[in-house]
Amino acid sequence: MAKKIKKIGVMTSGGDSPGMNAAIRAVVRACAYYDVKCIGYYRGYEGMIDNDFIELSPRSVKNIINKGGTFLKSARSEEFRTQQGRKKAYQNLKKSKVDAMVLIGGDGTFTGGAMFSEEYDIPVVGVPGTIDNDICGTQYTIGYDTALNTVVDAIDKIRDTASSHNRLFFIEVMGRDAGFIALNSGVGAGAEEILIPEEDQKLEKVLESLKRSKRSGKTSSIVVVAEGDKTGENVFELAKAAKEQLPSYNPRVTVLGHLQRGGTPTCFDRVLASRLGVKSVEFLLDGQRDIMVGLENNQVVATPISDIVNSEHDINRELLRISDILSI
Amino acid sequence: MAKKIKKIGVMTSGGDSPGMNAAIRAVVRACAYYDVKCIGYYRGYEGMIDNDFIELSPRSVKNIINKGGTFLKSARSEEFRTQQGRKKAYQNLKKSKVDAMVLIGGDGTFTGGAMFSEEYDIPVVGVPGTIDNDICGTQYTIGYDTALNTVVDAIDKIRDTASSHNRLFFIEVMGRDAGFIALNSGVGAGAEEILIPEEDQKLEKVLESLKRSKRSGKTSSIVVVAEGDKTGENVFELAKAAKEQLPSYNPRVTVLGHLQRGGTPTCFDRVLASRLGVKSVEFLLDGQRDIMVGLENNQVVATPISDIVNSEHDINRELLRISDILSI
Amino acid sequence: MAKKIKKIGVMTSGGDSPGMNAAIRAVVRACAYYDVKCIGYYRGYEGMIDNDFIELSPRSVKNIINKGGTFLKSARSEEFRTQQGRKKAYQNLKKSKVDAMVLIGGDGTFTGGAMFSEEYDIPVVGVPGTIDNDICGTQYTIGYDTALNTVVDAIDKIRDTASSHNRLFFIEVMGRDAGFIALNSGVGAGAEEILIPEEDQKLEKVLESLKRSKRSGKTSSIVVVAEGDKTGENVFELAKAAKEQLPSYNPRVTVLGHLQRGGTPTCFDRVLASRLGVKSVEFLLDGQRDIMVGLENNQVVATPISDIVNSEHDINRELLRISDILSI
Amino acid sequence: MAKKIKKIGVMTSGGDSPGMNAAIRAVVRACAYYDVKCIGYYRGYEGMIDNDFIELSPRSVKNIINKGGTFLKSARSEEFRTQQGRKKAYQNLKKSKVDAMVLIGGDGTFTGGAMFSEEYDIPVVGVPGTIDNDICGTQYTIGYDTALNTVVDAIDKIRDTASSHNRLFFIEVMGRDAGFIALNSGVGAGAEEILIPEEDQKLEKVLESLKRSKRSGKTSSIVVVAEGDKTGENVFELAKAAKEQLPSYNPRVTVLGHLQRGGTPTCFDRVLASRLGVKSVEFLLDGQRDIMVGLENNQVVATPISDIVNSEHDINRELLRISDILSI
Repeated sequence: MAKKIKKIGVMTSGGDSPGMNAAIRAVVRACAYYDVKCIGYYRGYEGMIDNDFIELSPRSVKNIINKGGTFLKSARSEEFRTQQGRKKAYQNLKKSKVDAMVLIGGDGTFTGGAMFSEEYDIPVVGVPGTIDNDICGTQYTIGYDTALNTVVDAIDKIRDTASSHNRLFFIEVMGRDAGFIALNSGVGAGAEEILIPEEDQKLEKVLESLKRSKRSGKTSSIVVVAEGDKTGENVFELAKAAKEQLPSYNPRVTVLGHLQRGGTPTCFDRVLASRLGVKSVEFLLDGQRDIMVGLENNQVVATPISDIVNSEHDINRELLRISDILSI
Repeated sequence: MAKKIKKIGVMTSGGDSPGMNAAIRAVVRACAYYDVKCIGYYRGYEGMIDNDFIELSPRSVKNIINKGGTFLKSARSEEFRTQQGRKKAYQNLKKSKVDAMVLIGGDGTFTGGAMFSEEYDIPVVGVPGTIDNDICGTQYTIGYDTALNTVVDAIDKIRDTASSHNRLFFIEVMGRDAGFIALNSGVGAGAEEILIPEEDQKLEKVLESLKRSKRSGKTSSIVVVAEGDKTGENVFELAKAAKEQLPSYNPRVTVLGHLQRGGTPTCFDRVLASRLGVKSVEFLLDGQRDIMVGLENNQVVATPISDIVNSEHDINRELLRISDILSI
Repeated sequence: MAKKIKKIGVMTSGGDSPGMNAAIRAVVRACAYYDVKCIGYYRGYEGMIDNDFIELSPRSVKNIINKGGTFLKSARSEEFRTQQGRKKAYQNLKKSKVDAMVLIGGDGTFTGGAMFSEEYDIPVVGVPGTIDNDICGTQYTIGYDTALNTVVDAIDKIRDTASSHNRLFFIEVMGRDAGFIALNSGVGAGAEEILIPEEDQKLEKVLESLKRSKRSGKTSSIVVVAEGDKTGENVFELAKAAKEQLPSYNPRVTVLGHLQRGGTPTCFDRVLASRLGVKSVEFLLDGQRDIMVGLENNQVVATPISDIVNSEHDINRELLRISDILSI
Repeated sequence: MAKKIKKIGVMTSGGDSPGMNAAIRAVVRACAYYDVKCIGYYRGYEGMIDNDFIELSPRSVKNIINKGGTFLKSARSEEFRTQQGRKKAYQNLKKSKVDAMVLIGGDGTFTGGAMFSEEYDIPVVGVPGTIDNDICGTQYTIGYDTALNTVVDAIDKIRDTASSHNRLFFIEVMGRDAGFIALNSGVGAGAEEILIPEEDQKLEKVLESLKRSKRSGKTSSIVVVAEGDKTGENVFELAKAAKEQLPSYNPRVTVLGHLQRGGTPTCFDRVLASRLGVKSVEFLLDGQRDIMVGLENNQVVATPISDIVNSEHDINRELLRISDILSI
């Protein structure tokens, strides 16, 4: 039988995402509600290794539900990939009498957590926090909805200039190897073309389509390009090719960059983070371990971390079809 | 066999909601894609009765995906409730050779549409557009996500003052007889109490809980009240009762009102509207009729309008529990 | 000769406004820059009386420049109006060796400060922080620009509904006895009528003008009403009168309320707060006292507090004329 | 004596900026108010040369006060720099009986306008519309305040990531050869360093200062770099140098790009555009010509275009001092 959990540690790791603070708040308050102690480690696995932590009470997390980033800070830890690093972390957890960990982060975070939990007797629960939405076992990751709105807001602004000047814009958005952000923000922003790594659009086909658009009376156009897409080597090469073949379109490039990671989380991300944070504690108290909490069909579900790591979250190809129809 | 559809009419009816323009755009462009003509009636059923319409091409709907409200305007029509009114509408549709209608609106819109389709041979498809999310057959209505973010943004602002002045705020939000907006925005904004019509919270219990909050060290509090909630007669009576029992909390009231209906739609609402708009046309062309399109488990589905009208969309009671835990 | 200042106290008092945190930050960092100690009193004069304070270093004010409200909290103090109250405050300041005070607030704050400085040998400098912009000696108060944008954003949203439904909206905005917010937000939002306390518009004239608008082809209208305006007793009476005389316009009321006070400050308010905060310290160190810092013609200037208290800040009547022309 | 003006043309030229639509609206409605006809030329001087225009009535400009970009579109015209091009434009104006022109744009627009007005008998008035604020004769150009808020909002988001990951960010902002945007947004966003073309900061000095910041306990930093700044060749070279000397700071670059040009105008820009637009018409009707309208000390003033072209708008060096103090 699992040992009774009296103290839970929480941390955020990997790229930060809006809503991580809301998730921490939910973990902390659920602990208080169930009369379990809670401490937060700073900078993810780094803080576990360095024993850099803070005791957390319901009042420590007031007024953070609407703050971007993570007040526990985040990092990627090389040392935790070594057995030595994980051992140090374990010893620190023992010293502080931490019985279980809630890990808020992405794929890399969970891989580390799975290894740790296997080696040492510390149950872990993963909470998916990344803007990329590239994690199996959940329809939505925390921060993804906010990032979509940030991107769409930026493209709306760029469209003002694009349509005032009859221009073509190539806009690179985040998402690592996944096209979720590009695909959804592209449909949301009414982009003429959306280039994602999951689909191999040919450069010539894209240019052909842009030419057709122009002939059909469109005076400006937006092409959204996922950072992992390889259609034209990269977004600058794409624009160069477009310049040669569509000179009157006056193509420009914007790489949205890190502003996509920050900002006040949307209501959706706050509610998602709140639900997943509370349930991560409840699952631990119910004796579950080495799972990730996720949202499927509006229900919080648990999936073994081992099923999640290295699996791929499929994009909704239906949206590509919709985008094609709407850019007529 | 259903007659081939060559021309589709589209209109928006009932309370406007953000994303209605995106839905119209999707209907218009899907029609063009499938080589079907499209016209838009102004002011919902009123325009059908008055034969007040506009021919719509893909270029007529450019740059509207991000605009709040509805450029086709909306209205509630008394005349359409009469047989005489519906007959006039039918005659106008025949005159313009409109073979089918896409109706964007809420419950009232669909009730009218069902009656109309029964009496005359005009297939209709409903697209759920309302901020209230009070419609069966879809997890989300168009405009609901935007309204949640508008409300949460407003409460964030009010919280600045609440916590600067150690005050208690009662904030009334929209939703007619449904608590969706109150419940989700309340969790998203970190409200201490959420009062919704679906739950009969007793006034004394609410005040007791607020007193407990104050004793536990909270210096300010937000109570979100659905407009249909009856806990304290209305939000002003609630505040009055609080003032008597918690004078040091200095309670204030804000009624958010109509600003909840407008604004640039979120990415979620734009994508939802785009998907539902396209599918409403595709369902019609596939011979379906008298259905509403909706989103269930991230799939667009069709439900007979007759199953939707007068049914109730259940709120997620799990969120009440989460809210309770988080307001510790 | 004035005694050398080694420690400065800072506080925020009266209604909170966006940018107060930025002003505190500027005071704290200017103190550090000039090697002067700095402490912050909580809840304005209340904290001075209760000796409720915090030592402030440059790092205590990091990441607050963009936060609404005031982390030092604010209050209106009855006790400070008594000699007894002010004496207690003075004794606490002496105990902490505070040599001078920076008072961030409005008219009421400065009145108290002037009295205090007269009775005791503590130089004070006022920093104008209020959304109302109703203070002489400065073209802009901290928070005013943010409030204008909040109001205009809210009216933009309401206009979506107003024009979708061909409606008339009466929108009450803050400003106490001053029409600054109403006048500027009204022009910025393209309101058809703007009612401010500084001008006695007759109810009949307003209704006449709305009727003319309607006849000229306008289908919806926005009337912005300052809370201090008396044209129609109050905004609800106005709407009632409009309903009687313009029934087809379907008039509605929204009282924006406290959301106008909060939110992330605009760039303008952050820069203004930064400049005024730094200069308030520099003026004190230069031996000036009992002044308010303000912005005139883009220069920071000092005005004796006695000249400011009870004087009136004139509105720009030119804007009324502009509004009249633009609502044609 | 100047000939009576019966018809005014209006256009937007050069880079678009938020508030241009509000300025067009003001010109159009002021014309209607004074019973003068108004037409709008598309794409600036290009439309004058191609005779591409639209008749404008008060209703043509409804609901555009809050839209970014310019519905008359904008362009830079090579042909207008030739005598031949200007002659064509003149002939088109004569054909349409246009008696005077309002030119909304920047320096390049006014240079062209001055030349045109000298050669042909068409009075012109310039309205300063550019986000760069690099125009003499006005404290503020239309669009500048909006751009500042867009930039500050983006930096706020980036700061979430910077402080979550203890990183150093170099952020390039627009402004061509002028540092207005960088300086004001840098102060507003609480940047540690601000690099502008008007000041020759040495690379070594900047790196020294960043090292000092880090030693003093700052864990993350933002450096705002004007696009015209030459401190480190360009922003990428700067980051490279920082990477070598401050490896633990993990420097990143974001080039904000064209999103700075778009978006809903702020209240300030809408009011400014409204005032300048109305006065441009009134000055023309009063017989003035070849002037630019501008805002000085909150008054609308007129300056001869010849005094403006090629003059330099000085930045507020006081802000550099403030920034230095605040980044302690």
